[in-house]
Amino acid sequence: MNNILIIGAGKSTSVLIDHLLSKAGTEDLFLRIGDIDLENAKKACKNKKHCEAFHLDVFNAESRENAVKSADIVISMLPARFHIEVAKACVKFKKNMVTASYISKEMKALDEEVKENGLIFMNEIGVDPGIDHMSAMQVIDRIGDKGGKILLFESFTGGLVAPESDTNLWNYKFTWNPRNVVVAGQGGVAEFIQEGKYKYIPYHRLFRRTEFLHIEGYGKFEGYANRNSLDYMSIYGLEDVLTLYRGTIRRVGFSRAWNMFVQLGMTDDSFKMKDSENMSYRDFVNSFLPYSPTDTVELKLRHNLKIDQDDLMWEKLLDLDLFNKDKKIGIKEATPAQALQKILMDKWSLAPDDKDMIVMYHKFGYELKGKKKQIDSTMVHIGKDQTETAMAKTVGLPVAIATLKILKGEITTPGVQLPIKKEVYEPILKELEKHDIVFKEKETEYLGYNPFGEVGN
Amino acid sequence: MNNILIIGAGKSTSVLIDHLLSKAGTEDLFLRIGDIDLENAKKACKNKKHCEAFHLDVFNAESRENAVKSADIVISMLPARFHIEVAKACVKFKKNMVTASYISKEMKALDEEVKENGLIFMNEIGVDPGIDHMSAMQVIDRIGDKGGKILLFESFTGGLVAPESDTNLWNYKFTWNPRNVVVAGQGGVAEFIQEGKYKYIPYHRLFRRTEFLHIEGYGKFEGYANRNSLDYMSIYGLEDVLTLYRGTIRRVGFSRAWNMFVQLGMTDDSFKMKDSENMSYRDFVNSFLPYSPTDTVELKLRHNLKIDQDDLMWEKLLDLDLFNKDKKIGIKEATPAQALQKILMDKWSLAPDDKDMIVMYHKFGYELKGKKKQIDSTMVHIGKDQTETAMAKTVGLPVAIATLKILKGEITTPGVQLPIKKEVYEPILKELEKHDIVFKEKETEYLGYNPFGEVGN
Repeated sequence: MNNILIIGAGKSTSVLIDHLLSKAGTEDLFLRIGDIDLENAKKACKNKKHCEAFHLDVFNAESRENAVKSADIVISMLPARFHIEVAKACVKFKKNMVTASYISKEMKALDEEVKENGLIFMNEIGVDPGIDHMSAMQVIDRIGDKGGKILLFESFTGGLVAPESDTNLWNYKFTWNPRNVVVAGQGGVAEFIQEGKYKYIPYHRLFRRTEFLHIEGYGKFEGYANRNSLDYMSIYGLEDVLTLYRGTIRRVGFSRAWNMFVQLGMTDDSFKMKDSENMSYRDFVNSFLPYSPTDTVELKLRHNLKIDQDDLMWEKLLDLDLFNKDKKIGIKEATPAQALQKILMDKWSLAPDDKDMIVMYHKFGYELKGKKKQIDSTMVHIGKDQTETAMAKTVGLPVAIATLKILKGEITTPGVQLPIKKEVYEPILKELEKHDIVFKEKETEYLGYNPFGEVGN
Repeated sequence: MNNILIIGAGKSTSVLIDHLLSKAGTEDLFLRIGDIDLENAKKACKNKKHCEAFHLDVFNAESRENAVKSADIVISMLPARFHIEVAKACVKFKKNMVTASYISKEMKALDEEVKENGLIFMNEIGVDPGIDHMSAMQVIDRIGDKGGKILLFESFTGGLVAPESDTNLWNYKFTWNPRNVVVAGQGGVAEFIQEGKYKYIPYHRLFRRTEFLHIEGYGKFEGYANRNSLDYMSIYGLEDVLTLYRGTIRRVGFSRAWNMFVQLGMTDDSFKMKDSENMSYRDFVNSFLPYSPTDTVELKLRHNLKIDQDDLMWEKLLDLDLFNKDKKIGIKEATPAQALQKILMDKWSLAPDDKDMIVMYHKFGYELKGKKKQIDSTMVHIGKDQTETAMAKTVGLPVAIATLKILKGEITTPGVQLPIKKEVYEPILKELEKHDIVFKEKETEYLGYNPFGEVGN
């Protein structure tokens, strides 16, 4: 019997657990699901016989260590900052571990110990990070194996609302943690490289420096830069690449509108607003505008952001009921970001029948035998309902598949790692295809940054 | 003999030391000047008989404590973050202390101990903070003593170049630490209150939300908000004030132009640029603009910041030689702020005959016996030369005067404090007048925010 410990049974783990339960009979699995809220864990188990729910307080060392000790492998679905204590217990009791989160500095520091013990700590194996790494490395390795040289790599992922549920002016709803959406891009400059030139975008310009993308059958999208593209030069083995740019996908027009909030200061998460509890939505807006005894909040905002009367940006603000005098923020000591999140959740929460969508886009420019070529690789996956969302599926399936492959000894390289090795990505991508998570490739001549070759016209 | 220990003998201390030396004979003073660089201390002493220069490493506990032990009073002119160890030694050996810096949390935490020992730790007694506090409190107390109620208090200070030395398009030169100018306003939102409404300005909008000021004989200026105006509601005893706004003065047009750097991300001090040492000024600019194989850095910047061809903003950039291909930043691992400082110092350093200027402006709105009134109080002081600068004088004189008054027992209230008490500000402001640091007051009807009383025209 293979004992799998799953820590954290939030909504996002449904597909992960269902997939493992569906294999429990044939693969001889037993799932122990631990959550701080026992009811959560019980719901996730659904009374299946290969599953046991239990109360787990991950901050209690005894509770944590007892849970890890009796497992064969540990999956941590906790928020990223809570993985490290679980990871240390996994080292202590010599257990393999799987997470869908970015490798933190603390996690990375365990690498040597993990290797010495012959353990596998597989991280960044959800969708982004996760499927993006795997699908990118598959193409990068294929080009490299043929003797080609990568010149350009751009990669974008977005969690969006599906076209059939896309019913507001923002073409956006919250399909994942709303807080992450509100503070996205904060905490440092976005750094990347284009044609050998290092480029820096400060947060307050991030949503005005977007790139357009076109995905066949789904139309036009836009992408804004992630913070840390340069890290992937060494991770992907692309030390000499001329262009490396990773970004986040939104529908066209979202970023320009979102930039209004950034400009006003409404996304700031670093200070508490005075009397935020009793503040109306209108008061909230007004606090970012100059005082006037005569002018309306509306006109002050239009003037401040230079919004013409016939500009759709304005309708987007009205759509959020942003100038309402009666609706209250109702949160004590709220930061602007928390207050904004409250306002957005009124309008951007998914309706019961809404579906979500994951969109991924890679562009590879390369040189092979003296010729420059380009591959555009895209993946779109639409959720089935609000349990089997595209997000839960694209995060949960790779985690589940990797866990089984580690258990069966099909993934063998030890260490704290992310899925960039062939032994990992090949079998996982193959199995994801069975679940309709499929990349479409289009090969063309290399277009680069000056497709028409014009200068000074 | 009164032994005065002065720690730190940088350029800014010249007036302070000269003033104390000029009183040494009559007041029976002996100055010990300690600096990490003995030559600095020697220069400051000028071989005067009432003065001794010595090497002082303030990070060495023995060196520090020996120096403090033998003094009657200690003046710390170190950068603000280094005061605290000196302060602890002053508590230990029961010595009074004077600084021109903002009271840090650590300094404030010593208050109880300082009071128990009957000691006076006078801080914020330079120009800003310092003369601003004293001159404001004098008017605030005078209005309060008459039974008036303060409705509005706005206060602005600026260190500028004198009109006769104002020779560049920016109407600005560095008259104090250039680094503080480049990073000014960073590290948090600017908070203040206007007519009872709390207002927040994020850093990236700070230089676009300025107020205009007019000072008779000197023309028009502009002010941008300081970060922490709300702190002064309790410090100045203005808990019920409707408007409290503190800001920094520049010549009109400076902020709009400076905003170009903020928008591009050039004032960011939080990350190191790649290969900054070999970067030309032009490369520096280009790193904040999108890549283009065809367009010039000039046109990309104009487009990015929407600068029309006949906009003076453009001439201001050219004035700095910002697009030069040959001039190098030449600093290893420079942050954008450090690189920008390098570029600005080429053009904004004072010429040998240049003079500086301190400008201060307070506006008080108040109600007395049912009538609303307003007082505008202004002070302008122009430096004599590059030793006796307006900055060194307005910082050094209040420090020197306060030190002597503490020594003579004319300032008596113990505690960690700033100069807001009558016993402190009255005699010091009076003596400053002898040195031509004089406030001019103009009383008018209260104008407030709607001087014409118009709505909806």
